[in-house]
Formats: sequence, C-alpha cells, structure tokens
Amino acid sequence: MALIVQKYGGTSVGNPERIKNVAKRVAKFHAQGHKMVIVLSAMSGETNRLIALAKEVSSAPSPRELDVVISTGEQVTIGLLCMALQELGINARSYTGGQVRILTDDAFTKARILDIDGDNIRRDLDAGSVVVVAGFQGVDEAGNITTLGRGGSDTTGVALAAAIKADECQIYTDVDGVYTTDPRVVPEARKLDTITFEEMLEMASLGSKVLQIRSVEFAGKYKVKLRVLSSFQEEGEGTLITVEEDKNMEQPIISGIAFNRDEAKITVLGVPDKPGIAYQILGPVAEANVDVDMIIQNVGHDGTTDFSFTVNRPDYDKTLGILESVKTHTGAREVRGDRTMAKVSIVGVGMRSHPGVASRMFRTLAEEGINIQMISTSEIKISVAIDEKYLELAVRVLHRAFGLDQAAA
Amino acid sequence: MALIVQKYGGTSVGNPERIKNVAKRVAKFHAQGHKMVIVLSAMSGETNRLIALAKEVSSAPSPRELDVVISTGEQVTIGLLCMALQELGINARSYTGGQVRILTDDAFTKARILDIDGDNIRRDLDAGSVVVVAGFQGVDEAGNITTLGRGGSDTTGVALAAAIKADECQIYTDVDGVYTTDPRVVPEARKLDTITFEEMLEMASLGSKVLQIRSVEFAGKYKVKLRVLSSFQEEGEGTLITVEEDKNMEQPIISGIAFNRDEAKITVLGVPDKPGIAYQILGPVAEANVDVDMIIQNVGHDGTTDFSFTVNRPDYDKTLGILESVKTHTGAREVRGDRTMAKVSIVGVGMRSHPGVASRMFRTLAEEGINIQMISTSEIKISVAIDEKYLELAVRVLHRAFGLDQAAA
Repeated sequence: MALIVQKYGGTSVGNPERIKNVAKRVAKFHAQGHKMVIVLSAMSGETNRLIALAKEVSSAPSPRELDVVISTGEQVTIGLLCMALQELGINARSYTGGQVRILTDDAFTKARILDIDGDNIRRDLDAGSVVVVAGFQGVDEAGNITTLGRGGSDTTGVALAAAIKADECQIYTDVDGVYTTDPRVVPEARKLDTITFEEMLEMASLGSKVLQIRSVEFAGKYKVKLRVLSSFQEEGEGTLITVEEDKNMEQPIISGIAFNRDEAKITVLGVPDKPGIAYQILGPVAEANVDVDMIIQNVGHDGTTDFSFTVNRPDYDKTLGILESVKTHTGAREVRGDRTMAKVSIVGVGMRSHPGVASRMFRTLAEEGINIQMISTSEIKISVAIDEKYLELAVRVLHRAFGLDQAAA
Repeated sequence: MALIVQKYGGTSVGNPERIKNVAKRVAKFHAQGHKMVIVLSAMSGETNRLIALAKEVSSAPSPRELDVVISTGEQVTIGLLCMALQELGINARSYTGGQVRILTDDAFTKARILDIDGDNIRRDLDAGSVVVVAGFQGVDEAGNITTLGRGGSDTTGVALAAAIKADECQIYTDVDGVYTTDPRVVPEARKLDTITFEEMLEMASLGSKVLQIRSVEFAGKYKVKLRVLSSFQEEGEGTLITVEEDKNMEQPIISGIAFNRDEAKITVLGVPDKPGIAYQILGPVAEANVDVDMIIQNVGHDGTTDFSFTVNRPDYDKTLGILESVKTHTGAREVRGDRTMAKVSIVGVGMRSHPGVASRMFRTLAEEGINIQMISTSEIKISVAIDEKYLELAVRVLHRAFGLDQAAA
C-alpha cells in the first residue's frame, strides 16, 4: 500500500489504444491497494502540431498565448485516461495544472514550479479515486496558463511526488531503464538496476535522453525515489535512481558511457595570454545563443595561448563567422575548426575513490589508435573529444575495458 | 466608440488563414476606437475530432472528463487569434471560460451560465487590449471545467455582452443574415434588416439554424442588441435582432417562412376520449427520448378521439414500436403513420394585429392542391404539416403570397 506517482510520456499515450493500455497498468496497481497519481504528457506529435499551427498565424508567437495553445495537449490526454479508467470501473478525476494548483513563475514556455497545492489530490485519493494530472503546465500568480518547457512532464511528476510525499515516482517511457551505454552501439550494454542522481545528471546531460535533466535535479534535491520503466513491458523493475548512500558498497567504478555525435571543435591559436581573453572569445558566441560545451585553455608560452571549445555541429558555421571578427579584436593568430567531432564520457561515482581511471581510459583508446583531441574532467566524469569516425569503436572498447559487459560485482 | 462583443463560429476560424482574416476584421474595428471582446468557437471539425477520440477510449465517456477534453478546442483558437492580432501590432489577451470567470452550474456537457465576472475583461479593455474569450465553456463552483453544449459559443457571446453591458453583440457566421426563407428553396428570399427576438425564436426552433436558440432567449431577456453577420463578407449590416418596439411601424405581417423536412406523422385512431389519454400515449414516447413536435387531438365523438403528433424522421420506427404496446393498454383502434412529412411555418409578430393571416395561408396552399394534414398555431406562428413532396412548392407560393419577395414597405 504505497502512494505512487506514475508519469507516462507522449509515446505511451500516443493513441487511444495505448491510453487504454496505460489504464490497464494503472488499474493493476490500484487493485493492489496503492494510491495512484498519474501525470501525463500530450499524445506524441500533438505539441509539435500545435506549435506548427501557432507558427502559421505568427512568426514569433507570444509566449503567453503559445502556452494557452500548447497546454491543451495534456488536457486532452488526462480526460481520455480518466474515461479509460472509468471504463474499467475505477473512479478517476483529471486535473489541469491550474486546477491542481501547480503554481509557477510567469516565465511562459519555460516556467519554474514555485509551489504545489496537494489538497485536491489528497482528498480524491482518500476517496479512492485515481488522480490524473496534466504534466508540463501550471498557472502563475495571476492565473495565466504557463508551461514548463520540453520534457516538463517529468518535472511535474517529480515535483508532485515531492509535494504529496509519494513513496516513489515512476517515469514510464519507451525504454526499460538506464543502460550502461546505447545498446544500438554496444549490443552488450546492460540495464542498470540503480544509478545515483549525480551519475544520472551526467548521463542525461551527455546525451542519454531518458529523463529530463531538471526532473533529476528536482528528485535529488527533494529526495524523491525515482524509477525509470518501460510502458511497453508488462514486467521489469526498470532503473532506480538513488542518492549515493543507498548504493551497494561493491559498486562498479564506472556506471555508464555517454556520448554525443554532433560536436564540432573550434580552436583559436596564438591568443595573447592575458586576463579576460576567455570572455572576449566566448562572450560574442554566447550572445549569439550558441551553447558551448567543452572548453580548454592550454598553458601559454611566448605570451600567447591556444583556446579550444566544442559546439553543437549545427552551430559550427555561425560560430566560425563570429570568431573571424573576434580574431582581429583579440589579435589571435589563427582560427581553426573541425566539424566532425564526437564526445565520449565515462561516468561513475566510483572514480572518486579509485585512482587510475583516467589513465585506463586513455590507454584503452591509445591501444586502438584513437587520438584524443580534448580532455575535460569533473569529479565523476571524464570526457574526451575524438574524431567522429572512431566513436562506435571508442564506446565499445571502453565498455569492455571497464567491465560494463558483466553484471555488477 | 462602442463596446462590441463579436462571436466567430467554427467555420470562421476553421484554419490559420481564416483566423488571420478574423484578426484583420477585429483590427479594423479596433482602429476605429471600439473596445473589442471576441468570443470564439473551436476550429470546425475539432470538437467532433475530440469526441471521436473520447469514444475510442470509452463507450460512454464521463461528462466531466468529456468537458475537459472538448473544451481544449476553443482554448486553441483563442491563443491563435491573440497571436494573429499581436502580429498586426495589437495588444490581445486570451481567456478560457475559467479564467474569465464564467461561472456555470455543474451540468457537464450542457451547463448553464450562472454568473460572469467581467473584471479581468474590463481591466484589459481599459488598458487598450483586445480580449479574446473561449466560447462554449465555463467552470463550476468547485473549479471543474464545464461546457454549454452545442452552439454554446453564441450563448457565451450574448451572456458576456450582457455582463459587460456591451453596446452590441455581433454573431459572425457563414450566412450574411436572417432570410425570409432558405434561398436554396426560394431564390427570391430576401435578407431581413431586422427581426424581433420572438420571431427569431420561432424561426430558429423551426429550422433556420442561424443562431443557437438559447442565445436568442438570453439576448431577449437581457435586452442585448444582437446582430447576425457574415464573416466572409467585407461589408454588410447583417440582420439586427430587436425587441418588438424597435421595429418599424410599417412592419410586414409575416417576417419569414421556416420549414423542416425530416418529419414523420403518427396517428392513434379510436382512442377512448377520457382524461389522461395524452399522457398515456406520449409518456412512453418521451421516456424513450423521442422529441415530439406538433401535437393534435381532435374533438372526440362516440366516446373516442384521434390523436396525432409528429416526430423527427429518424425516430419514426422506434416510436411506432412503442405505440404498438401502448395501443393495447389504451384500447386504441389503430396506429397509423406517414414517414414523409414536412412542416412549413409562417412567422411574424404582425399577425397579432392582422386577422385573416391563417385563411390566406390555407387558401394559398389549397390553390396549389396541397393538402394540409395537421395545423398548429401560436401567437406569432402558423405551422402546417404537409406531404414532403410539396414542401418547396408550398414555401415558394407562401413566400410570394405574403409579399416577402418585395422589400418591406
């Protein structure tokens, strides 16, 4: 008899048949005596359809009105799921974000949750109802409809779980858990039974797009027990995302390997080595809304230094253009680039207590003749930039070298 | 400088191009200095699409959840129109029924408006904004989303106009006004410049489906100046619906001719002529949710009487079946029916002060050899049931006989 929040994504509620399947799954939990709160996304494709409509009437739709339009996607699915549950003889009541009420700031299209009133939900749960809540949306203080931005339904699920003190927040998606790496690249990739919040954050931000990053931060902050599961499998425990202390002492050094294909590298050579140079180079890039990922500055010599960073490949040409003008300002010698980069990262809280992880990574890559072009490290992650053509090879050999093919010790 | 409520139906906002056209029309009024409140329906077809989705998950969707789902249709159009207005440089703000707030009872799918809070609207109007409101919807006391039933957007328009004391409520539709009769049947049919609320009610309930009947009642009750116009024409004054006193003294006797094709007649012959017989016959029919229209009971003789009524043609067979069992209870001699009936009605407040209108109608039909099978009258309407094959002929000759082909004197 637990209080469980389950969140189902757009694919899981992509058509009436799938909505009925979600209803059956919820009914099973309900029959076991659990109190159930369900958070839903819009049917897959619906949010994009609504955005396309908006773009047809306005080249730059007002964020307030965009939220009015796109929040309807979740409103449709919550009503439909309640009907499907009622068809199974289960009492169910739907709530929009405003009806809950999920109070947010007024940053339309990317609002942040400020507070959740759990009274309506608790009352309905106590009366034996399943409560179905629209993800991705809320209201501001003035009653305007807001949305939380892409992937915001995960955040709604976690925030609700925190607000009503749920025993667990289960995120149903189209994969059955978090893997050591992408199984399409390494067939031996294993599903992880547990992963820490910190590792999950590194995995998510590095391209393992299972959970929206903000929801993971939220779950970590409010200590919500978070589990990723597949909505297309009957059984399975998915992957539990835990605070570090919960983890098995015998944890592996590395939990997983994340990678990102679409990187590009830009190097500014012979920059005068003086304070403020990083800002002079990256300031104009940030102003152009280009996200910069890895940033490397070598130790200077002869009064100059080399400065490298990576950007998403679609931003490559734009960024090169910006730097051509920066070059003259800064007196840099040359701007070079490479548009076919990839990034590979090994992630694991275990590396904190195990020296030699980095050298094992570099040796593994060297043995395959893979040249490392950039290196960047954090406490629980080591990332390298390599030529994209070596990406699959690098992920495979690292997966084996760190023993990820075998079940955890 | 007037305060105008404009309501646009589903065809008028049926796609992004048409929504932009509505924006242009609103912009024109706004530029003339009018304060504008716009009420919108869902894009044509959208409500049906949503109902079909609901039917796919549940054979009998819960009315509360159905309202959650179908109310999204208008929420999309209000956002889109605001964007289109902003694209033209006009400040605009959308409101769902709940945001206004339009308070209704909790009769989901057919709620009635109890109260409208005009504060938000007035504040925005005073700030120079156009206000765009979702038609067809409201919230109950507990904050549940409700809808007003089909055609409810007209009612929203009129109720809002009453609440904020608008100078005029303009209903934009795909016809340019109310006609003396259907121009597809009588090419000489003329658009009426004015019609009284009472006449409009009779015309509407008899099949001139220009305005939702409840909205006309509402407008009459709260003395809202109501005008029907075409959203597909640049110019035109449409038809103004007035209280009787406003009308020209030289008004014509008859304002229009309404008709309904899909009628069927049922006659119960030789019923014992005693109290309660009408209820014994019509009670079971009403219980089966069959709408009965004209009801005629002849003066009895020999202790029995004949009892006739009309129903919509799709209900004909069902009704005959019900009456077969009623026959035995009541001791009636015979049940007869005719499934190819039509009803023609002449409508006009002028007939109150002009005797001989009925006889002119009957003579006109007799001269064409059209047999009148049933007659029913009200203060401002005379209806006859005739064989459907004479319908067009009857409407044409009556249109001419009452001088509707010519402009009003």
